[in-house]
Amino acid sequence: MNSPLLTDLYQLTMAAGYWRAGVHDERVCFHLFYRVGPFGGEGAIFAGLETVLSFLDSLRFAEEDIAYLRSLGLFEEAFLEMLQGARFELDIMAPKEGSYMLPHAPLLRVEGPLWQAQLVETALINMVGFETLIATKAARVCDAARDRDGKRQSVLEFGLRRAQGRDGGMSATRASYIGGCNATSNVLGGKKFGIPVRGTHAHSWVMRFGDEHLAFRRYAEAFPDASIFLVDTYDTLRGVEIACDIGEEMRAKGHEMLGVRLDSGDLAELSKGARTILDRRGFPNAKIVASDSLDEYAIAELKARGAEIDIWGVGTRLVTAKEQPALGAVYKLGAVRENDRWAPRIKLSSTPAKVSIPGRLQLVRTGRGDVLVDEDLERSTRAFPHQGEGLLEFDSGISMLEPAMQAGRRTHAPKPLSEIRQRALREWDARENHPALYLEERLHNVREQLIAAAQKDPEETP
Amino acid sequence: MNSPLLTDLYQLTMAAGYWRAGVHDERVCFHLFYRVGPFGGEGAIFAGLETVLSFLDSLRFAEEDIAYLRSLGLFEEAFLEMLQGARFELDIMAPKEGSYMLPHAPLLRVEGPLWQAQLVETALINMVGFETLIATKAARVCDAARDRDGKRQSVLEFGLRRAQGRDGGMSATRASYIGGCNATSNVLGGKKFGIPVRGTHAHSWVMRFGDEHLAFRRYAEAFPDASIFLVDTYDTLRGVEIACDIGEEMRAKGHEMLGVRLDSGDLAELSKGARTILDRRGFPNAKIVASDSLDEYAIAELKARGAEIDIWGVGTRLVTAKEQPALGAVYKLGAVRENDRWAPRIKLSSTPAKVSIPGRLQLVRTGRGDVLVDEDLERSTRAFPHQGEGLLEFDSGISMLEPAMQAGRRTHAPKPLSEIRQRALREWDARENHPALYLEERLHNVREQLIAAAQKDPEETP
Repeated sequence: MNSPLLTDLYQLTMAAGYWRAGVHDERVCFHLFYRVGPFGGEGAIFAGLETVLSFLDSLRFAEEDIAYLRSLGLFEEAFLEMLQGARFELDIMAPKEGSYMLPHAPLLRVEGPLWQAQLVETALINMVGFETLIATKAARVCDAARDRDGKRQSVLEFGLRRAQGRDGGMSATRASYIGGCNATSNVLGGKKFGIPVRGTHAHSWVMRFGDEHLAFRRYAEAFPDASIFLVDTYDTLRGVEIACDIGEEMRAKGHEMLGVRLDSGDLAELSKGARTILDRRGFPNAKIVASDSLDEYAIAELKARGAEIDIWGVGTRLVTAKEQPALGAVYKLGAVRENDRWAPRIKLSSTPAKVSIPGRLQLVRTGRGDVLVDEDLERSTRAFPHQGEGLLEFDSGISMLEPAMQAGRRTHAPKPLSEIRQRALREWDARENHPALYLEERLHNVREQLIAAAQKDPEETP
Repeated sequence: MNSPLLTDLYQLTMAAGYWRAGVHDERVCFHLFYRVGPFGGEGAIFAGLETVLSFLDSLRFAEEDIAYLRSLGLFEEAFLEMLQGARFELDIMAPKEGSYMLPHAPLLRVEGPLWQAQLVETALINMVGFETLIATKAARVCDAARDRDGKRQSVLEFGLRRAQGRDGGMSATRASYIGGCNATSNVLGGKKFGIPVRGTHAHSWVMRFGDEHLAFRRYAEAFPDASIFLVDTYDTLRGVEIACDIGEEMRAKGHEMLGVRLDSGDLAELSKGARTILDRRGFPNAKIVASDSLDEYAIAELKARGAEIDIWGVGTRLVTAKEQPALGAVYKLGAVRENDRWAPRIKLSSTPAKVSIPGRLQLVRTGRGDVLVDEDLERSTRAFPHQGEGLLEFDSGISMLEPAMQAGRRTHAPKPLSEIRQRALREWDARENHPALYLEERLHNVREQLIAAAQKDPEETP
């Protein structure tokens, strides 16, 4: 699926149109961003950059791609020749993966020839939109999974089977780990991304042996130091007692049962019952793993009811982001290179939040608010809120967008995923330090001027 | 992603456990099904079989897969050698893709060595669950998109950018077409699956030229016989007038504008206004395409408000199945081969609908109801409803499950997708002919006996 054909047809018809009009190689600047914090929250954990870079890094039209396009009967031969010879040479600026980003802040800034920057829109929105959505969902789920002292508990991502397609599963595994999950059940995800993998056995294992004593004993024989027993195939608390019977057999041979897993029923009551049995039977260190339609809301409710759960297995509602299965990311033209300078562009809308932010944007993190600046304008020390009233005085801050790709070549090797995950955990916990998005004063003024000019005569939008 | 590692770790730990217990090659029968009709409907359009077959057809452990598993430190070397030498030799029975299937009816019947049938569970649920979900959503959307005479209108799938990952997009494109969509914007989907592709231009095209007259004229020059103009960049109805201006220019050169597209605002009012303008200006055959957060509910509401829309572009809400982003398919052991006969197995649950149906199942479509039968039991002519009271007398019907794979080899070449789509359209329109699922009398009795035996002593579930 690493093909430039992974796009909407209109990107190619527009490319052909630009080519015909002789403007396809004009240099342009697009921003990819989202407009509303997902899941009713403020911001999002940025993810998907590495996926984008590995997609773009080797992107080219194969002969069979050109043959397919030719078969559509839409394109001139000389245009197809241009495609066939093309090398993608985009510049990408982006925040570090794992950064906490507010609505309207660029997740990618894409510069390059008009037709190329336009063509990749669809794939880039797909990749960044989905991974950012799931990393954010995972951050919320993991934030809810804390013990009484506020310490983070383990969250395992179990979603592959219910994910939207194979790559839906693979991308969700990657993004869930970035957002804070500790491990995945997805073995290919573990192999590809270096994520720890976890799992024990299913109900079908117990059904195969028919008898929990026998099933647990056989499992303990195979994995004497890695046994967590699924106890709810017949009667959950009786299953916990049987797990303890086998735990005693294991201990006699010098091994220790790691814990039990609950997958159905009233998890709050059953976990309390299981904890009591495990403690009484001499297994105070055995962990209780729970799964069954969990998300941040279910975890919070179980906590409130005093559930004795140590490890959370989260599947469908995490990997499909069930309550909101798309981020709604967009990709808007910010500026066009004209006569050796960048000319800002704006997209109007009757909905004020949909009016775009013009320019070639950089995001400055000041510690009191995130400030959008235009790289091509002098900066004042004042900024205005993107939405609402107020004023922020700032003099310096961290430039969040960094070069990720120059002229189609990656600027550095992929970062280890564990490092990205650590950043996401830190950024999530510090998210209240940058509660709102501001526009630097000159950028703000340019935007107001462009809006006024466009409203005066919509046919003359710059 | 065509790897046997596309699975949950517990499938591999169970395989190792079965291998250690010497039972890994026992012959078993699993069924893949779903329990509740998606989107509040009764049944679902089955899709994903071809995806499953092409996954299984070449499945084997690569050396690097084995090296990764070895690195986990969980598995014995002799087990890894068994994996490395293994050829997958499953038998698959399935309905034809595009069939309308009720809850609890098998979408796949998988027979083969215990460890293999268990290992592929995760990938099979992923593929069949997602494609069946989206084909069903598409069937609902396309059903809503009918003109005043009940004739089906065109529905275009525009979802790639908002899909859950690349394969989320590709699988959704395939399944949407099966469910009844007429075309896709996804070019790679068009190439891979032979689906018609459609598209025109984006707002960014208009923004590039700044002036709708110029933008539409340039587009018409590039695509004189395939121009649909996006008219809502500035002011929608003014955009329609400008489209007509350019349509007149095109007509003077012997070409015809195909239509206009609306992508925002009150689509009911704007489409009526656009229709009036197009008719008045002499373009009664120009089509009105509409898009913007559409699904079956939005389409029905627009119809009710008298919208003059001819072609529907449907994206996010279709390809993510926004209201229910997972089908919740499951995979349950039905029977185990013992002493040269198949012994049925049941999975109990405190929720009656979650008690499984034992046996090696076939589905007989009688025209008055769908009857589950056990291939290894004599059949009576009576059947009882799976849920509720009643009785169905039947003597014959169509056997819906057909061989799709034998001993790991496909039994026939892939079917053209257009044929699958035609079947889905027919099956959807005839779905009221098989309103409920029945259990043939002897199967029903065996199930009752197994439930009674299991409840007597849960440790002795057969």
